[in-house]
Amino acid sequence: MIGKVEDIILRHTTQIRVRYAETDKMGVVYNGEYLTFFEVGRTEALRGFGLPYPELEKEGYLLPVIEAFVKYKAPAFYDDILHVTAFISTKIEATLTIKYLIEREKTTIAEGYTIHSFVHSVNMKPARPPKSYRNAIELYSSQINHVMKG
Amino acid sequence: MIGKVEDIILRHTTQIRVRYAETDKMGVVYNGEYLTFFEVGRTEALRGFGLPYPELEKEGYLLPVIEAFVKYKAPAFYDDILHVTAFISTKIEATLTIKYLIEREKTTIAEGYTIHSFVHSVNMKPARPPKSYRNAIELYSSQINHVMKG
Amino acid sequence: MIGKVEDIILRHTTQIRVRYAETDKMGVVYNGEYLTFFEVGRTEALRGFGLPYPELEKEGYLLPVIEAFVKYKAPAFYDDILHVTAFISTKIEATLTIKYLIEREKTTIAEGYTIHSFVHSVNMKPARPPKSYRNAIELYSSQINHVMKG
Amino acid sequence: MIGKVEDIILRHTTQIRVRYAETDKMGVVYNGEYLTFFEVGRTEALRGFGLPYPELEKEGYLLPVIEAFVKYKAPAFYDDILHVTAFISTKIEATLTIKYLIEREKTTIAEGYTIHSFVHSVNMKPARPPKSYRNAIELYSSQINHVMKG
Repeated sequence: MIGKVEDIILRHTTQIRVRYAETDKMGVVYNGEYLTFFEVGRTEALRGFGLPYPELEKEGYLLPVIEAFVKYKAPAFYDDILHVTAFISTKIEATLTIKYLIEREKTTIAEGYTIHSFVHSVNMKPARPPKSYRNAIELYSSQINHVMKG
Repeated sequence: MIGKVEDIILRHTTQIRVRYAETDKMGVVYNGEYLTFFEVGRTEALRGFGLPYPELEKEGYLLPVIEAFVKYKAPAFYDDILHVTAFISTKIEATLTIKYLIEREKTTIAEGYTIHSFVHSVNMKPARPPKSYRNAIELYSSQINHVMKG
Repeated sequence: MIGKVEDIILRHTTQIRVRYAETDKMGVVYNGEYLTFFEVGRTEALRGFGLPYPELEKEGYLLPVIEAFVKYKAPAFYDDILHVTAFISTKIEATLTIKYLIEREKTTIAEGYTIHSFVHSVNMKPARPPKSYRNAIELYSSQINHVMKG
Repeated sequence: MIGKVEDIILRHTTQIRVRYAETDKMGVVYNGEYLTFFEVGRTEALRGFGLPYPELEKEGYLLPVIEAFVKYKAPAFYDDILHVTAFISTKIEATLTIKYLIEREKTTIAEGYTIHSFVHSVNMKPARPPKSYRNAIELYSSQINHVMKG
């Protein structure tokens, strides 16, 4: 049986290789591309937590972005290997906030967050966080708890 | 009454201003962006011929690209004003071929074409060229004919 | 002679037509594209204020984005005509903050801002706001002032 | 010593996960994105052959695309894992032609090619294929030959 899950922060890191298409004439990654990097980090984090985003869509939910923030700390260059870490709280709320950290080795490239609402895909009306989402977060974090307590 | 329409080539020119986002670290427009420029030229040409693409979609048709070709002749730069000319034949065929010419003043920047199939949006199955498309092309080209004969 | 310029907000509105390339499988404009829309609004605003961004680059300056924020209020769709209004303060500071409002007719689609630093393009080191920038803002806002006082 | 290298075709396969940003409202990958997929396949192939593209740029060369062709065979969807295979001939010529095959498991998604010229980055003037490129292709293909003969 799964006991009460404390409010902990799950984290998951994904690797991205910067494409030529993502650079601009300044010789660095274009500012708008970071929201796509966040998307990749978010997608892989949800998959890592046992809940692939395509599954959520199949169940009839969408997670549109309602707010996004990026703080650019250092430029990223063509062919760089970037590590995108996504942070998701186990606390289930009406909206989902995901934080991000993008690094190249020990250099912080960018930080930021996105806030998402849960909506029904049929009518785009607000939905409660889907059961499969709540279950996945609960299961994953209970495993983490066990490891931490172990 | 509209007489027999000869096989003539309709043309329509649209203006595009190059965005920073569209450049790459080589300091020029990224090669993949030209397919988006073709899309803009195509959309505005269809609108110019009296058949906005969103109308076609509302009628239940899609026009996916099944082949694309680009010949890059000279680089395009940030903030350039480009003229995208789309050429569409009045001859109705199973697939739709559109040719493009991209120019900056008198310099040819790129040439190319896209080939499209008509499909039903509900099942992505092949469709005959929709009546509204045939009518629009016929009407537009008969007007052109009149002008040319006038 | 131009007298002391009060801290007023300059505004400039640009029109954008949403491209197919900018939509995603949710059927709406992808969240990351809004930063490109902000870029277009910013570029045209600076041009409108008498200081085209390419001129700044020719003088040896770059304006990299160091922070970006977007609040998504309503979805934007393919072929929508959007109005992007950029707001720039006449108060010259070490960094440049530009605010944005994106609308489709009377519907607010998104709001947000970007913060930019001035840097020398040769070495990417911080620069003071370039004289041409200060002059353009001062000249433009004095004209506005006259109009308002007139 | 490396003997005469016959004209063989080198191939290299890279894996790509389709991003949400790369889809359009038709629910499939946008046609223009395939040129970026080709870029990723090309970059990883050159790296696999022992000649990372960033090295070529550091040596003062660029490889702009002068022609591109894509044949779309089947749609690709969000979160698909695609395999991009790039084919490069060992025959050194004035321009470089790279062919591509994109597959999802046993389904062919797209085929195509890009043609590149070698230019000096300082002045964008045509260059002979750089020595490091010729050496890398020769070394890699001689190893392949040995394996094939072994």
